[in-house]
Amino acid sequence: MGNDNRSREIAELMRRRIAGMRAGERLPGVRALAAEYRASAATISSALSSLTVLGLVRAEPGRGTFVAGQERMPESDFSWQSQALGRVRVDADRASRLGSYGTPEHLPLSWGYLSPELQPGEELRRIGSRAARSGQGWGMTPPAGSPELRRVLAAEYRAEPSDVLVVSGGQQGLVFALRTLAEPGAAVITESPSYPGAILAAQSAGLRLSAVPADDDGILVDRLADELERTKARVVYLQPSCANPTGAVLSARRRAQVLALASAHGAFIVEDDWARHLWLDRSAPDPLFAEDPDGHVVSVLTLSKPVSPSLRLGAILARGPAGARLRASRTADDLCVSPLVQEIALELLSSSAWPRHLRRLRAALVGRREAMADAIRSTLPDVRLPRIPSGGLHLWARLPEGLDSAEVSAAAYAAGVLVGDGRHFFVDEPPAPHLRFSYGAATGPQITEGIRRLAQHL
Amino acid sequence: MGNDNRSREIAELMRRRIAGMRAGERLPGVRALAAEYRASAATISSALSSLTVLGLVRAEPGRGTFVAGQERMPESDFSWQSQALGRVRVDADRASRLGSYGTPEHLPLSWGYLSPELQPGEELRRIGSRAARSGQGWGMTPPAGSPELRRVLAAEYRAEPSDVLVVSGGQQGLVFALRTLAEPGAAVITESPSYPGAILAAQSAGLRLSAVPADDDGILVDRLADELERTKARVVYLQPSCANPTGAVLSARRRAQVLALASAHGAFIVEDDWARHLWLDRSAPDPLFAEDPDGHVVSVLTLSKPVSPSLRLGAILARGPAGARLRASRTADDLCVSPLVQEIALELLSSSAWPRHLRRLRAALVGRREAMADAIRSTLPDVRLPRIPSGGLHLWARLPEGLDSAEVSAAAYAAGVLVGDGRHFFVDEPPAPHLRFSYGAATGPQITEGIRRLAQHL
Repeated sequence: MGNDNRSREIAELMRRRIAGMRAGERLPGVRALAAEYRASAATISSALSSLTVLGLVRAEPGRGTFVAGQERMPESDFSWQSQALGRVRVDADRASRLGSYGTPEHLPLSWGYLSPELQPGEELRRIGSRAARSGQGWGMTPPAGSPELRRVLAAEYRAEPSDVLVVSGGQQGLVFALRTLAEPGAAVITESPSYPGAILAAQSAGLRLSAVPADDDGILVDRLADELERTKARVVYLQPSCANPTGAVLSARRRAQVLALASAHGAFIVEDDWARHLWLDRSAPDPLFAEDPDGHVVSVLTLSKPVSPSLRLGAILARGPAGARLRASRTADDLCVSPLVQEIALELLSSSAWPRHLRRLRAALVGRREAMADAIRSTLPDVRLPRIPSGGLHLWARLPEGLDSAEVSAAAYAAGVLVGDGRHFFVDEPPAPHLRFSYGAATGPQITEGIRRLAQHL
Repeated sequence: MGNDNRSREIAELMRRRIAGMRAGERLPGVRALAAEYRASAATISSALSSLTVLGLVRAEPGRGTFVAGQERMPESDFSWQSQALGRVRVDADRASRLGSYGTPEHLPLSWGYLSPELQPGEELRRIGSRAARSGQGWGMTPPAGSPELRRVLAAEYRAEPSDVLVVSGGQQGLVFALRTLAEPGAAVITESPSYPGAILAAQSAGLRLSAVPADDDGILVDRLADELERTKARVVYLQPSCANPTGAVLSARRRAQVLALASAHGAFIVEDDWARHLWLDRSAPDPLFAEDPDGHVVSVLTLSKPVSPSLRLGAILARGPAGARLRASRTADDLCVSPLVQEIALELLSSSAWPRHLRRLRAALVGRREAMADAIRSTLPDVRLPRIPSGGLHLWARLPEGLDSAEVSAAAYAAGVLVGDGRHFFVDEPPAPHLRFSYGAATGPQITEGIRRLAQHL
């Protein structure tokens, strides 16, 4: 392994050297290189073979190793593609923000995931290496997921294992649920503001998204009733247990009303239950899924949020023919989720490290939430926090009237601070300027420093 | 680790025991269970806590552990879903065959992947455990993939790293490429017969697929010209380097003609290059991608085929605005491919084990191909093999007129033999009865025995 690292270093050094050479030029022999880089011939050979794989050099047996030529194609003409591609569906600007985590130098005051020190890194490495070594992660699982993992996930939702479909993270779950439940071009309703990933998922599925305002108790049900009537939408996307970005929780009264509306209109509720494991002050509300016998609620859950964005694992829970259709269509989209990733998730959820991780995580998030709210209140007096959420990772902040959230977030980015531009949380024009802050991705000192820098730009 | 295995065994035994108990019944105490199962109290506690996670028992501190009650919901009424779901897009029967690998008792004479002993299992376990332990697999990568992996994959295609988009396997790549390049409802053309996964991908994307006949030299170009004219399709799906199921290779003359047609009609060619690493008798033909400067060809490649179906990794190669759109839309669909899986793929492709694996694999596949062709010729005289392909994993077999491939494959299944029903390779009604055999998934003795059993049903 030491040799592997050394040969990688040497390969990197040689890559730089080759960049300054002409195609067809001969490299020194292995012995000369070994002397030059103070490495064994085996290490040099290994470095050379990795450069060969990269197409940077070409070995000619008996003659030596040569700098590979860039085979030039005729100049490209892509102009025809503009006609062939048709209209853009996915809003590239919003999409780039979803995947964006700046440079390592940026202070991450907005990202929907946990900073590395909050992730159960040691457990992932331990469980991961065991799963990979055991061979357990190298068999196939059925397209709907490993039976054991489906059982564990079902238990968390008091669902049947057969209702569970394992997917590669919550975002894939959203896109797949929306585009399987709704036909292309169909109407879908969401609360407003809403999660940019869901707006993008609807765009990707070719759906028409309309937005219904929400307040502290969640989506306004009379407006939802109007919109269901007007659009004939058969899919409503909600985050009832903790809305991103506002932290609003659908009240008990409205939960019942929303379910009654779904029943009256024959509609699905896609319940994005992303914050299930991120409740801080009390235990999480029950999922809407658990209150609905008739299969109106299709829930999407994620392990990427409470564990690590690199653990690409989530699930869709759905009952009735909708569940059957989702599971049957799944094979056509993606044969199955990496069995290794499924095995790691199963081992993590079943181990005693899991409740320990959640306890530690919640305590840390409570501290960061307070630190961030305090810093905003004391350092940014013109910025208003309408609500301190009981769960999740975010603070939704209202900017003074007249400010442009795009400009503020761009200035912050230039000053090395990532904040969420509130625009991306609205389907169309934002009704007021907002920023979204996240207290899960930054440490205490990063939070203080980020807010301080932001104050210079407000 | 020994304890973990033991506690899993005990959990399994207890699960069976609980199945025979009533909800609310009390389990014996930890000491009594420890005596009964001859295990330590810690092992028993660990088994009990895994049953708690599964929702099968409920611990009441100070009182004991009780069999959990199945909380019954009111009886479900899913009838409304039939109206809400609208028409079925993905053909569930075809989809179930794609993901189907029978039971462990079935002789796998049709599956598009390698049998376990042909997979580089030891290397995957070694590289996998190292990647998981190193923490390298637990950071995030950009949505388009890890820069190093993109570089290595680009080198295999003489493409630019920036043209590469890493995806979770070839099937995901197909669906994503088709539905991003074509608008829902648009026409797409494929050769006939064609890969069922591609037919399903087009269905999943909501596209209208039309089929153009192919012969030994690939798709008939005059027919393709007619169909492009008639349907105004802007996407053509092909497997030019080795068609599944027939093994046909697009001739040099037709390659040029197909590219000229794409240029004349302003169309994309989605090149499914699944057999790149599975060429047996000579080196693989160049990808069509390498001959096209103007970005007509969008290639989809896979590592799941030459490595293991459990390594869910593939890539899309695309140039120009189409490449940009694919990469921008990707974030909306799936934040990124599991970084751990990407790291494993990178390490495997860069190691000296990779060429060694491919050499060993090709030698083994040549042997199995001959064994299977010989067995079919000697044991099934009425079955005709029009072609022994130079690459890939499959033999395409013509059944005598009048036989129904669905009935033959169902009878074979009942007799414990998996063979591919030729119907699934045609967009609509099959013009003749065929079976698809695969020599990659079965051992020599399995091949002989499978063909022998099949003979009894023909």
